[in-house]
Amino acid sequence: MPILLPLAFLFDQAVPAAKPPPSPAEIAAGAPAAAWRAIADEDILIFTLFNRRQVIVQLAASFAPRHVERMRLLAGSRWWNGASVYRVQDNYVAQWGDASEKKPLPAGVADGGAAEYERIGGAPVLRMTRPDSFAAIAGFSDDGWPVASDGKYSWLTHCYGMVGVARDLAPSVGSGAELYAVIGHAPRALDRNIALVGRVIEGIDALSSLPRGTGKLGFYEKDQVPAAIVSARLASALLPAERPRFEYLMPTSPTFARYLKARENREPPFFTVSAGGADLCSVAVPVRRRSAG
Amino acid sequence: MPILLPLAFLFDQAVPAAKPPPSPAEIAAGAPAAAWRAIADEDILIFTLFNRRQVIVQLAASFAPRHVERMRLLAGSRWWNGASVYRVQDNYVAQWGDASEKKPLPAGVADGGAAEYERIGGAPVLRMTRPDSFAAIAGFSDDGWPVASDGKYSWLTHCYGMVGVARDLAPSVGSGAELYAVIGHAPRALDRNIALVGRVIEGIDALSSLPRGTGKLGFYEKDQVPAAIVSARLASALLPAERPRFEYLMPTSPTFARYLKARENREPPFFTVSAGGADLCSVAVPVRRRSAG
Repeated sequence: MPILLPLAFLFDQAVPAAKPPPSPAEIAAGAPAAAWRAIADEDILIFTLFNRRQVIVQLAASFAPRHVERMRLLAGSRWWNGASVYRVQDNYVAQWGDASEKKPLPAGVADGGAAEYERIGGAPVLRMTRPDSFAAIAGFSDDGWPVASDGKYSWLTHCYGMVGVARDLAPSVGSGAELYAVIGHAPRALDRNIALVGRVIEGIDALSSLPRGTGKLGFYEKDQVPAAIVSARLASALLPAERPRFEYLMPTSPTFARYLKARENREPPFFTVSAGGADLCSVAVPVRRRSAG
Repeated sequence: MPILLPLAFLFDQAVPAAKPPPSPAEIAAGAPAAAWRAIADEDILIFTLFNRRQVIVQLAASFAPRHVERMRLLAGSRWWNGASVYRVQDNYVAQWGDASEKKPLPAGVADGGAAEYERIGGAPVLRMTRPDSFAAIAGFSDDGWPVASDGKYSWLTHCYGMVGVARDLAPSVGSGAELYAVIGHAPRALDRNIALVGRVIEGIDALSSLPRGTGKLGFYEKDQVPAAIVSARLASALLPAERPRFEYLMPTSPTFARYLKARENREPPFFTVSAGGADLCSVAVPVRRRSAG
């Protein structure tokens, strides 16, 4: 089917004719090996759904160490086996865990403790060119996360695919058992109000393409079937040969700076007017599978 | 199932305990009748999919009059009957039209003419509090659209649910037959580069929950089934009793200003830290069904 479909030039497609400048995706793909950093096996959490689709989450241990530790305990005790995605609200979140709210949590896991909504210091090592609508400073942390900052504190931001810990009203901070992923326009108002604990680095569409819940706030009604979760395992709990391996482009690398600039300044032939800037959540951190070794 | 699910307080749910301030949704719902303006029947285009789901689009005739006129001709000639949604790219767009690219366009419809990517004047009547990452000015037009401006020109913005005209490289501006809707984080880099012609005011989830295309750029591969479009009709072409009727909250109304302020300043009990601002695409213009009469 050799048809040229409209919009086909939006992304990293090879364009014949006068050689265009490399696209953001091409710039990232061409980064030297030294610009990539491996994600640790204990920071990779793999949810497998009823349909064999996998949702792979990178954990943000540097921002929410306590919640991440709880999540590792939950995975280790296979607590999520048999859980489900029970809420899918359009342009907002997909949420999963124990819909019955009756399943006992394993030892060492409970709602409570200090909130992990922000941390002292940790301003981004690479900043966006244009002002952010939500914070004084926005950019990327040295370990590859989208962050905002007021100069004193910094925090993860609710970009597409980010994973957070559902909670009730304060003092609840969530146990880490009930999670959500952003599947719509970045709900940045949640920043500093909920603990973000990671991001989906593969398989987000297994969540975003689920039927929306017809109940209030997108909760599935009784006549809808929640998406069952078969298992949740840390990569570090798998045999080495079975572990999925990922790496991210380091924000401290020259290539990342070029990638950001290209995202902020889209170029011809498709783009004729460039905004000269972008918002933080328009610039996904490049993450890819890496070959074994 | 009287369980209190986490995150249940995020939106417009009645919260017991100390009476909280009204949520943004509650403020909009409480607007007086005079704050709402009816959408004209000829500006409502109804796509009906294979599964009976409807995707209802409000046309932006004040911004893209030529493209909108073409779309009315396409609907009048039933050109979209038998078309399909043939591309669904996660966190980006769902695109529909004639996947074969061979169906002749009706008289009066063709790619070409001046681009309708921006217009002179038309700065927003209500502005966002915080800076926009893409433009000097961002806010809402008097007729209810999200717009950005450089002080001289203004243009519609690629917020969630906005509908645009797919095109090839310039001088193509698109015919209006191939359309897309935003189903992810606002791809604002497309602003001023593509003609936006409207927004989905009902049924966006019929597009956003479709399976993602496994081909490049989210195009459906041969082993995937495009979502067939049964019909596309203007509301004005239906019998009066069958016409869906909608109204939007006028950005010039005091209620809209309060709604915007509430969106920019989320409040307790759920929110404990407010950003004091938001980006344009975080603030959807309230649109609702209206009762006949």
